[in-house]
Amino acid sequence: MLKEHYPSRLLEDAVEAISSLPGVGTRSALRLALHLLRQPSEHVHHFAESIVRLRDEVHYCNTCSMIADDAECSICRDRSRDHATICVVENVRDVMSIEKTGQYHGVYHVLGGIISPIAGIGPSDLTISQLKSRVEALTAASPVPASVEVILALSGDVEGETTAFYIYRQIAGTGVTVTSLARGLAFGDDLEYADELTLGRSIVNRQIFKP
Amino acid sequence: MLKEHYPSRLLEDAVEAISSLPGVGTRSALRLALHLLRQPSEHVHHFAESIVRLRDEVHYCNTCSMIADDAECSICRDRSRDHATICVVENVRDVMSIEKTGQYHGVYHVLGGIISPIAGIGPSDLTISQLKSRVEALTAASPVPASVEVILALSGDVEGETTAFYIYRQIAGTGVTVTSLARGLAFGDDLEYADELTLGRSIVNRQIFKP
Repeated sequence: MLKEHYPSRLLEDAVEAISSLPGVGTRSALRLALHLLRQPSEHVHHFAESIVRLRDEVHYCNTCSMIADDAECSICRDRSRDHATICVVENVRDVMSIEKTGQYHGVYHVLGGIISPIAGIGPSDLTISQLKSRVEALTAASPVPASVEVILALSGDVEGETTAFYIYRQIAGTGVTVTSLARGLAFGDDLEYADELTLGRSIVNRQIFKP
Repeated sequence: MLKEHYPSRLLEDAVEAISSLPGVGTRSALRLALHLLRQPSEHVHHFAESIVRLRDEVHYCNTCSMIADDAECSICRDRSRDHATICVVENVRDVMSIEKTGQYHGVYHVLGGIISPIAGIGPSDLTISQLKSRVEALTAASPVPASVEVILALSGDVEGETTAFYIYRQIAGTGVTVTSLARGLAFGDDLEYADELTLGRSIVNRQIFKP
């Protein structure tokens, strides 16, 4: 493929910047740049400003490392939630996914990644030590350590399992209850097309039928 | 679907701005916003600045309406090009596509759109009157008007044909040569899968075989 002939340095710079986004190729970037060029100037300024403000002014919650507008996130600030139940997730998006279900009323702990020797991410790159301190503080304040629950809501792949196991080893000594997400058939899943591992686990972990 | 629970106003604003781009949904916008959040601050500033500068500082060539860094685009400024051959295209991207072929050495005229009664775009919304003045100036300066050529490089749909016909009527009186792009089978096309219209035209407009 021949190199693009950009009619303008400004266009070339913008296309280069836009195509640095994941999943955006040069062709899409050009389409987006030409779209922005047709928008009112205030619109484009607002667009750019909202991105810069996000990057420069966002906070991370001192307690759970969730994205926040202040030093404490809206979930940790919410006294109606159960602060003795901590759901450990990989990232911000996982919190948003679980919140969207409306089924969870505890708090979170955002690891900021997952242990991955291939990607060079070790336990010290994540917020695991903060989680440990947090759990220790909770159990120290509770007469029944087992009433504190840590839910390991990590993905089911090797890295997720490794991270879950590492965290388990770090906090098991405190006597808290450690749980993980139920695995089984998804709602609407056809038995015929489920993989053996999932189907197997869903038989072993079968539940009382409640019609 | 339940509404997203944004943990931060800043994140929500950024996602809203990014998802205003064509073809970018809320989910992709969130992914892109979280990606930008992980980038160095200077990178994000550069990203935002390049978009704002494109919008605020770009010029349109006084002659051909192409995007430019000055009052005259790099193609119109190039004296080695044939300024008596004007290729009329719908938009900036078409100029870039034709330049990429390396086969064209004339100049351009960017209409800025196509006549479309449905979209409410009429001839006066395009640069057709400027094209007419340009052609008139060229023929006035030339002893042989037919040596000036206007190539109508517009798409083959109804709107493209309508626009081509309208422009033809505007400039035919000046005596210039008006041509349009060759239509036929694409290189590598299989006869079996070509549509009838294209195959039909490629037979009617057959060319001397040059092995």
